[in-house]
Amino acid sequence: MKAEIINIGDELLIGQVVNTNASWMAAELTKSGIQVVYISSIADDVRAIEDELNAAAERADIILISGGLGPTKDDITKKTLAGYFESGFVFHEPTFEQVKKIFAARKFEVSELNRQQALIPEKCTPLLNISGTAPGMWFEKDGKVFVSMPGVPFEMKTMMTDQVIPRLVKYFRLGAIVHKTVMTTGMPESFLASQIQDWENNLPHHIHLAYLPQPGIVRLRLSAKGKDKEKLMAEIDRHINTLKTYISDIIFGYDDVSLEEVIGALLVKSGKTISTAESCTGGYLAHLITSISGSSRYFKGSVVSYANAVKRDLLHVDAGALEQYGAVSRQVVEAMAAGAREQLKTDFSLAISGIAGPDGGTTEKPVGTVWIALSDKDGVISQLFHFGEHRGRNIRRSALAALNMLRLQLEKKN
Amino acid sequence: MKAEIINIGDELLIGQVVNTNASWMAAELTKSGIQVVYISSIADDVRAIEDELNAAAERADIILISGGLGPTKDDITKKTLAGYFESGFVFHEPTFEQVKKIFAARKFEVSELNRQQALIPEKCTPLLNISGTAPGMWFEKDGKVFVSMPGVPFEMKTMMTDQVIPRLVKYFRLGAIVHKTVMTTGMPESFLASQIQDWENNLPHHIHLAYLPQPGIVRLRLSAKGKDKEKLMAEIDRHINTLKTYISDIIFGYDDVSLEEVIGALLVKSGKTISTAESCTGGYLAHLITSISGSSRYFKGSVVSYANAVKRDLLHVDAGALEQYGAVSRQVVEAMAAGAREQLKTDFSLAISGIAGPDGGTTEKPVGTVWIALSDKDGVISQLFHFGEHRGRNIRRSALAALNMLRLQLEKKN
Repeated sequence: MKAEIINIGDELLIGQVVNTNASWMAAELTKSGIQVVYISSIADDVRAIEDELNAAAERADIILISGGLGPTKDDITKKTLAGYFESGFVFHEPTFEQVKKIFAARKFEVSELNRQQALIPEKCTPLLNISGTAPGMWFEKDGKVFVSMPGVPFEMKTMMTDQVIPRLVKYFRLGAIVHKTVMTTGMPESFLASQIQDWENNLPHHIHLAYLPQPGIVRLRLSAKGKDKEKLMAEIDRHINTLKTYISDIIFGYDDVSLEEVIGALLVKSGKTISTAESCTGGYLAHLITSISGSSRYFKGSVVSYANAVKRDLLHVDAGALEQYGAVSRQVVEAMAAGAREQLKTDFSLAISGIAGPDGGTTEKPVGTVWIALSDKDGVISQLFHFGEHRGRNIRRSALAALNMLRLQLEKKN
Repeated sequence: MKAEIINIGDELLIGQVVNTNASWMAAELTKSGIQVVYISSIADDVRAIEDELNAAAERADIILISGGLGPTKDDITKKTLAGYFESGFVFHEPTFEQVKKIFAARKFEVSELNRQQALIPEKCTPLLNISGTAPGMWFEKDGKVFVSMPGVPFEMKTMMTDQVIPRLVKYFRLGAIVHKTVMTTGMPESFLASQIQDWENNLPHHIHLAYLPQPGIVRLRLSAKGKDKEKLMAEIDRHINTLKTYISDIIFGYDDVSLEEVIGALLVKSGKTISTAESCTGGYLAHLITSISGSSRYFKGSVVSYANAVKRDLLHVDAGALEQYGAVSRQVVEAMAAGAREQLKTDFSLAISGIAGPDGGTTEKPVGTVWIALSDKDGVISQLFHFGEHRGRNIRRSALAALNMLRLQLEKKN
């Protein structure tokens, strides 16, 4: 079953609003086994809407429309739909009751403009809007379904979840489609692709693989189509088990979990605490960790030691080591990790020292050179990384690499 | 001049990714006086891409395509474009040099898959991708322009700003349109609008004002259309001078400068140094400051004191004050600021202690309660803020409020 999403609104075309409705609707449809084949944003304009309805009907069985139903603009979308389906208007009492209820709650008088919101095309099945005034409209034509919904996100979401999705599943007697996303970190997309080439070539035809890269992270999304959701998911899981034999160390989780969530859960489970000592990441690692609600259970704090004096005074890094090896060195990053663990009294401590750029690089230690150390009661381990030239990405990739180092250690020790 | 934006990627159609590229591109085109008439998201599929190119050529003069250019096999845009424009492939040496450069920096070997990224359709003008490996492609056909760009946001943005927009302006001889954005912080949009109402009503017809709100920041963008860019900009500057008489304290800069850049420049100018002591912001303030290249000239470090023990041990906050007033109090935040200034030996120190949420709020100190203090040689000033309920936004708004406090102090003392 194929679906298309049409978003109506000039605000989308001038870039004033990010279209979060489209991605939310697409995710909901996908979860229900409906394949979204096309998403468009068009103007509040009769001709644009008519053209799009015609084109959509060629491509899809389900056409979902959001936006253009407010009390000032609704005439365009609603009238255009009525015209398209050659329908007159009727007064819909339950919608008018809803309009009156909403206005009473806000202590506003109901105007003639508001009364008109209860006029709906007689050929549609109205969908009550329990969070707003503009009703949704369900049309059927030549075996295809067209649904118009409000553009206000929470009104649209309630209507989709409570009414539109259940009606679609029933109307089209839908089959199954399932997805699972494997989260990886620390290996570039092209390198990863060649590592797992054999595995990828052995995937059956009904399972599709997509690479979704972000700085420092590559997501591998597996999608399977068939009849039985549980069987398909079991099949995907089997392929992921095989995948693990190729790249076990770089897989940190599934389905859009973040690395900071993963290490948070591992720390809670083990009852351990963490601190950080940061030079080139400048607090970003601590920020990632504390972006997770409840992180105070395992995160005690960080010393952002940008200046060497702070490494010396607060982390007790030996001045001689700073002098002899430089701040970006195994010796110093290990001393930073040990110092933070001792000063902040935590089970683990992660330390990062590197050259984020664009300045500060040398031939011996170019921009992107980053040392990361992890200290715990058994000692300290450290690793040298070579990232790229982009400051912001070097900061992000350093923090992710540190979190991954901690994850591997926590998984080994659990 | 009409434009259309085509976003290629299955991840958009299953709703895994919010399409921020489309809104950003639409906003950039709009700023250049180009009207966006249509935005679509389509599959990584030859037929879907070809159909869309045909439809787009009917509606628009400029067709911008983003996505589908990665090195792996789900990316088929390049081949489809070559087919559409009936073009063979040539090896593009500068692109291969760029691929090698990116991989050398990461110490990875260049694979055959990567070498293929330098194969480009001979009928296009290649656009070098200075932030990634996949080049952009500029095609011209029947007076229309088609541009293919990478889907990775920062790669696309750099290419749009540096190459695509200037080329479009030149190719289509676009009229003069100038913009200047006034950056404000600390006043909500609706309150700001009523403060500057009289000024706004006196703007001439050819100057348009747009409110562009973000958490903690409202940008006021003035756009003027006409013939002479210099005259238009002088006119905008005169109106901004008048605007300053209404809201001087909350304007921190112009044209998308960040608050962290502004305070960086002020600190460099005054030769002063800064440190931070952070509780609820968890390192985000230090991260903002160090996201600026060259910040090591004025930023020495931060103590992220998430746990009270760290406030006590590293910042020397009095245990009695923590007990008596709680961590979120004037007494504690002032002691944190003074402690950081002393321990990290800086001219200024900013401290933040608050309740980011969603947990930890009380009737007396609900989620969003944040104390911020600024310490310098003359003493310490502090201020209480009440932000909202959203953790991420509370963290961001706290950090911005702290930076603005420092900015006002630096401007007063300069």
